[in-house]
Amino acid sequence: MTSDGFVLDAQLAQDTIPVGDAGLSRILLMNNKLYPWLILVPARSDLVELTDLTLDEMNLLMHELHVISSVMQSLFKPYKMNIAALGNQVRQLHIHLIARKQDDSAWPNPVWGTGGEPYSEVDASLLISRIQNALATTMQEEAS
Amino acid sequence: MTSDGFVLDAQLAQDTIPVGDAGLSRILLMNNKLYPWLILVPARSDLVELTDLTLDEMNLLMHELHVISSVMQSLFKPYKMNIAALGNQVRQLHIHLIARKQDDSAWPNPVWGTGGEPYSEVDASLLISRIQNALATTMQEEAS
Repeated sequence: MTSDGFVLDAQLAQDTIPVGDAGLSRILLMNNKLYPWLILVPARSDLVELTDLTLDEMNLLMHELHVISSVMQSLFKPYKMNIAALGNQVRQLHIHLIARKQDDSAWPNPVWGTGGEPYSEVDASLLISRIQNALATTMQEEAS
Repeated sequence: MTSDGFVLDAQLAQDTIPVGDAGLSRILLMNNKLYPWLILVPARSDLVELTDLTLDEMNLLMHELHVISSVMQSLFKPYKMNIAALGNQVRQLHIHLIARKQDDSAWPNPVWGTGGEPYSEVDASLLISRIQNALATTMQEEAS
């Protein structure tokens, strides 16, 4: 729990593996090896819609989306990023970032509801290290 | 065509009805009466990913998303907004804003690929007027 009472939604916690903290948002890896798929969850309590964020928080979120999408684009070379705040099933505000390829199993449809396959423990931990390293490099470049 | 050579994608032009201009983005109504569904298209040439925008443009887009989502929330009282940049079918950067209800025909799934029904000319023009009036009021409030 953060100082303002934020607690990650139980379903999100169950479906994902923690990757790190972006400042405003928690970064989670969707435990589905069919697609490189991260989820950003702004760590403020009682958020449902993007419009529940202040304008400053929205700009911060946009910056985090920019950094994390760039990292995914350079790591996974997607044909297209899918970035979405849906929330029909889990109401806590969360944003999907999915690196899509033209030979992935749902292409060209959206990935939601098309099933999934969990990572092995080794594969998850390797992938998370790659993402963490790339994020650290990008954030260092921005700071310098 | 704008000064930088922006031309609206032909498929987007075919599927939608123009609503207005938000500053950075064109506002379009998806011609599908099953859901209140607007599309924002940042009017800059050669945009594919959100990361193709400058940070200033991203902040401007976030502001436009905030205003237009707020207007849709107050007009249509959705259970949840779905906001997404997918682009698997149409590559020109565009952002969907869809007002979802628990009794709409695709609930709780995403709406893409679930079919559609065009508005009558009268219904489209009435709805567009409602949206334009609400947008004008919101923008006036922001400016004052």
